[in-house]
Amino acid sequence: MSLLVVGTVAFDSVATPHGRVERVLGGSATYFSFAASFFTPVRLVSVVGEDFPDEFMAALRQRRVDLAGLARVPGRTFSWCGSYEGTMNEARTLDVQLNVYGDFSPALPEAFRDSRYVFLANGSPDSQMRVLEQVREPRLVVADTMNLWIERTPDGLRKLLERIDALVLNEGEARMLSGEPNLIAAGERILAFGPRAVIVKKGEHGSLLFSRDGGRCALPAFPVARVVDPTGAGDSFAGGMMGFLARNDLNDAAALRRAMVFGTVMSSFVVEDFSLAPFQRIGEAEIWSRYHDFIRFITV
Amino acid sequence: MSLLVVGTVAFDSVATPHGRVERVLGGSATYFSFAASFFTPVRLVSVVGEDFPDEFMAALRQRRVDLAGLARVPGRTFSWCGSYEGTMNEARTLDVQLNVYGDFSPALPEAFRDSRYVFLANGSPDSQMRVLEQVREPRLVVADTMNLWIERTPDGLRKLLERIDALVLNEGEARMLSGEPNLIAAGERILAFGPRAVIVKKGEHGSLLFSRDGGRCALPAFPVARVVDPTGAGDSFAGGMMGFLARNDLNDAAALRRAMVFGTVMSSFVVEDFSLAPFQRIGEAEIWSRYHDFIRFITV
Repeated sequence: MSLLVVGTVAFDSVATPHGRVERVLGGSATYFSFAASFFTPVRLVSVVGEDFPDEFMAALRQRRVDLAGLARVPGRTFSWCGSYEGTMNEARTLDVQLNVYGDFSPALPEAFRDSRYVFLANGSPDSQMRVLEQVREPRLVVADTMNLWIERTPDGLRKLLERIDALVLNEGEARMLSGEPNLIAAGERILAFGPRAVIVKKGEHGSLLFSRDGGRCALPAFPVARVVDPTGAGDSFAGGMMGFLARNDLNDAAALRRAMVFGTVMSSFVVEDFSLAPFQRIGEAEIWSRYHDFIRFITV
Repeated sequence: MSLLVVGTVAFDSVATPHGRVERVLGGSATYFSFAASFFTPVRLVSVVGEDFPDEFMAALRQRRVDLAGLARVPGRTFSWCGSYEGTMNEARTLDVQLNVYGDFSPALPEAFRDSRYVFLANGSPDSQMRVLEQVREPRLVVADTMNLWIERTPDGLRKLLERIDALVLNEGEARMLSGEPNLIAAGERILAFGPRAVIVKKGEHGSLLFSRDGGRCALPAFPVARVVDPTGAGDSFAGGMMGFLARNDLNDAAALRRAMVFGTVMSSFVVEDFSLAPFQRIGEAEIWSRYHDFIRFITV
């Protein structure tokens, strides 16, 4: 089934204990699209500037990503600069330049409005809502968010939560949004705000699912002994998860559990190297092999 | 099979966001014994002072704990005072009084020397080694440790690691002992120091198993929405785990995986109230019920 993502396509500059890269391909919609593309074709809506190189466009196209919704406008592309240290559990943002993304009001091409599976990558709740209004009959809408929106636009976020099926957010954000330091209480509370499901991403500690119809579920992260760059892990998780759901046209809580396994697998690949490099090396065989390893890893 | 624990029996004073208690029953050997006692009888070796009340002795006896190795000597009982805040993932130690435990040189009653399953709760590697020398033919020796010994007596600890079957330690200690910030790399590295298995406790994030013959395994924590007091969670985990192994006379890596589930279940009970109160309320029915809930929780 059709899978739509709206988010950033960006230049990333990243420093980690394993090295550094400058102005490589990044952005939430990019990571999501690459991860999901192994399961189903992806429609991407975003904006880049005139400085966005053709080779990056080609890299996205090579993964069958439909770029009809990727506007290229005068100005410079969104860019992010960050670093990771120690346990690498949290990025330190050194610089963000919104550039052309600052004025971006996502407009869906007519051909994208029938999308059935929709991922609203991190963005203002207002702009996420505007995307939602352009999709005719979505079967599953999942949104990401961040501390910025939890603090600045709590009302908009609460309104959005009543309109979406599932929210994905990280551990710290879940505690902040709910006001609950206990993560289980936090997840339950956010569930009460409206969505059918809440997925809490915990980096190296895996993920938690809270759902109205299917109870709760926990998954560890896939054991990666050498994390080179955690950038994009969360969006790749969402990409693997929603790619699996869209491919199999599923949206129930039981399917969400299984989908999270594929999210876990895809995010485990992406952290093994900088930018999208891991996704340019793997194929179905590597994904299934790691899937089976993971099932063994969680079986008691 | 016979299960021996050597560790502290203590007075705990604890403050958490849910309340505070003064001089309640605590100590690593106490928590371990209570948790393990639901699976098999436990032999305890420790020391208390003259101030240790009869009612605490009675509470231990009620759980079928063999107190032949619990010395009662002139002086005061080991006491610990600590607090938990926010996510409650780490205790802040406000005061420790070793008291009679400071001069404690564990001597096993003759009747305990044939113990087959041995848990060396946190203590100096020297004293842990002295216990080991008194046990004739152990089938499974598991030890706990802490940052203090990792920093102060690294050589003694490394020697101990060559003599034991498994080490349990928490996340931060694993990173410290291995010098590896990545937890998977840390576990593998500690495995190379000698033990057949390494179990990393991650509090609300569950636990990891690294083993020579059975690969790796991860378990989440049981979802507890209201953690009242995390004190003793780690020792209760070890108690549930070793209680299961001793009861079924198992020591292979596959059994260790399953045993960790019971460790997880027992630790989830103990954090729901102060001191040992939860273990004084539950029985087999509650343990099995939570076991099945947990299996559902981790099944995809």
